[in-house]
Amino acid sequence: MARAPNVHICEVAARDGLQNLDVFVPTEAKCELIDAIAAAGISEIDAGSFVPPKVVPQFADVDAVMAHAVQHKSATIGALVPNFKGAERAIAAGVGAIYFVISASESHNLANVRRTIEEQLEGFRAVRTALDALPIAGRPRLMGAIATAFGCSIEGQIKEAAVGRLARGFAEAGADEIGLADTVGYGTPGLIKDIVRVARDEIGSQIPLRLHLHDTLGMGLANAVAGLDVGIRRFDAAVSGLGGCPFAPGARGNVVTEDLVFMLERVGLSTGIDLDRLMQTREILARHIAPRHLTGHLHEAGIPKALRSAA
Amino acid sequence: MARAPNVHICEVAARDGLQNLDVFVPTEAKCELIDAIAAAGISEIDAGSFVPPKVVPQFADVDAVMAHAVQHKSATIGALVPNFKGAERAIAAGVGAIYFVISASESHNLANVRRTIEEQLEGFRAVRTALDALPIAGRPRLMGAIATAFGCSIEGQIKEAAVGRLARGFAEAGADEIGLADTVGYGTPGLIKDIVRVARDEIGSQIPLRLHLHDTLGMGLANAVAGLDVGIRRFDAAVSGLGGCPFAPGARGNVVTEDLVFMLERVGLSTGIDLDRLMQTREILARHIAPRHLTGHLHEAGIPKALRSAA
Repeated sequence: MARAPNVHICEVAARDGLQNLDVFVPTEAKCELIDAIAAAGISEIDAGSFVPPKVVPQFADVDAVMAHAVQHKSATIGALVPNFKGAERAIAAGVGAIYFVISASESHNLANVRRTIEEQLEGFRAVRTALDALPIAGRPRLMGAIATAFGCSIEGQIKEAAVGRLARGFAEAGADEIGLADTVGYGTPGLIKDIVRVARDEIGSQIPLRLHLHDTLGMGLANAVAGLDVGIRRFDAAVSGLGGCPFAPGARGNVVTEDLVFMLERVGLSTGIDLDRLMQTREILARHIAPRHLTGHLHEAGIPKALRSAA
Repeated sequence: MARAPNVHICEVAARDGLQNLDVFVPTEAKCELIDAIAAAGISEIDAGSFVPPKVVPQFADVDAVMAHAVQHKSATIGALVPNFKGAERAIAAGVGAIYFVISASESHNLANVRRTIEEQLEGFRAVRTALDALPIAGRPRLMGAIATAFGCSIEGQIKEAAVGRLARGFAEAGADEIGLADTVGYGTPGLIKDIVRVARDEIGSQIPLRLHLHDTLGMGLANAVAGLDVGIRRFDAAVSGLGGCPFAPGARGNVVTEDLVFMLERVGLSTGIDLDRLMQTREILARHIAPRHLTGHLHEAGIPKALRSAA
């Protein structure tokens, strides 16, 4: 008997997984990937980023990809945006979720979008206002995504108060959800718990919190468990662990969706995801992306037969 | 200011890391590896296994390796043994620790050593008696190592009671320490906590417990954190994540010592280990072992500069 999912996973391979790749993945392959992700039962898909093509060439075809993706009715299709203009494009594309990103690290924010955190929050407020002018039916959900929440490749450790302040800023500006992103993967289990608690204290109990983890230093799943321990039930993840920081070429990318789903189900939680179908996304990726970018313990080891029969 | 170590790490690359390899690592390279491990400040080294060469050809040179290893005075040199005869050889070699292994899975035990658990415990008791006849000075420490404590490739899940019973058997037979080994890497954080608690209840508070983790399914560090949460401060680990189950060729091996040490230090614990020197063991291994066997996030990503400066 299928259980109702009690952990929500947003698949980010088509966005975070692709954005730093040195090859352009053809539009058809991106669409095929999104289809396969939806077919595996994933209910939210980060399908691309509305940024200028000269900044991220990978998303030069984002309009075409989104036009295909939003046809899926079983999944919320989301897009990352760095500013109001990106959000306008996302709304026009008919997405169901907008992830508006601001770094907790002032230096990272300036490097990333050439604006201060406060200037970015102005943009976020403008997006909120624009969304509120739309009819409720079909209005995209708005997430405030806090990048570098657990460390920054420029500043190193980030003060808890800086994350708390930005979380409060997002909450006061009307975020429907707040994401805490370990952009470069420096988080540790203790830090995850601390920052989640700080954010929760600032925003109250009504706004959902999501964790976005990278496996740079091997602590991706350990950090997910830390998140579970402090009540997190919403995670970003990427099939085959796609993604990773361009400044650390060999580094692992996002926490691996397959490994995360397997772990969650093994500890008695339910994701609503068909793991065998999810594993099939590997074939699509392998046709276009070099093997060194494709990771995942479950892909290496296979799903152990002894655990299948025990399940 | 150096802090006194509060987590104890036993390096098992020279034993568990090598035993399933398809190449024979030359005796000199094994000795060089052990020297480098000791030089990095690791205070306990599992340096080989006293088994018949026809069973594990890798250890055909175990006497020569041990004769070299036991010259190290800064580290306890240990050996794994499957029976009384192996323990006799280990004692003759002058080791400081004997790891006597019995599987919690009856099927695995029969497949591994062709004896029942109870027959194995008889052997363990004989080793205890032999050790007690030695002078206290120089008497090796005796660990009862429980293999397949968190799952078995034959039986799948293992009953908690079976692990508890074996832990009690070891304790009653005079084990100085008891090891809980996730031999095939099926453990999950919740299971780690449950089994540690069951074992602790059976053996009382005086006998130290050690965790031996494999990273087959990517949960190695998550399981280590679970162990920390229930009071474990003694871990086995292998540099470059050497090791792994011969029945899952692509599977990851032991939890990676470098990654584990980095995580422990990042969460405020102290290992007494020099991470930079530990990382240098990679070069020794790379000369003899295929790259696909050498893993580790820290080796791929490098130690982040931003975290070094923040430390």
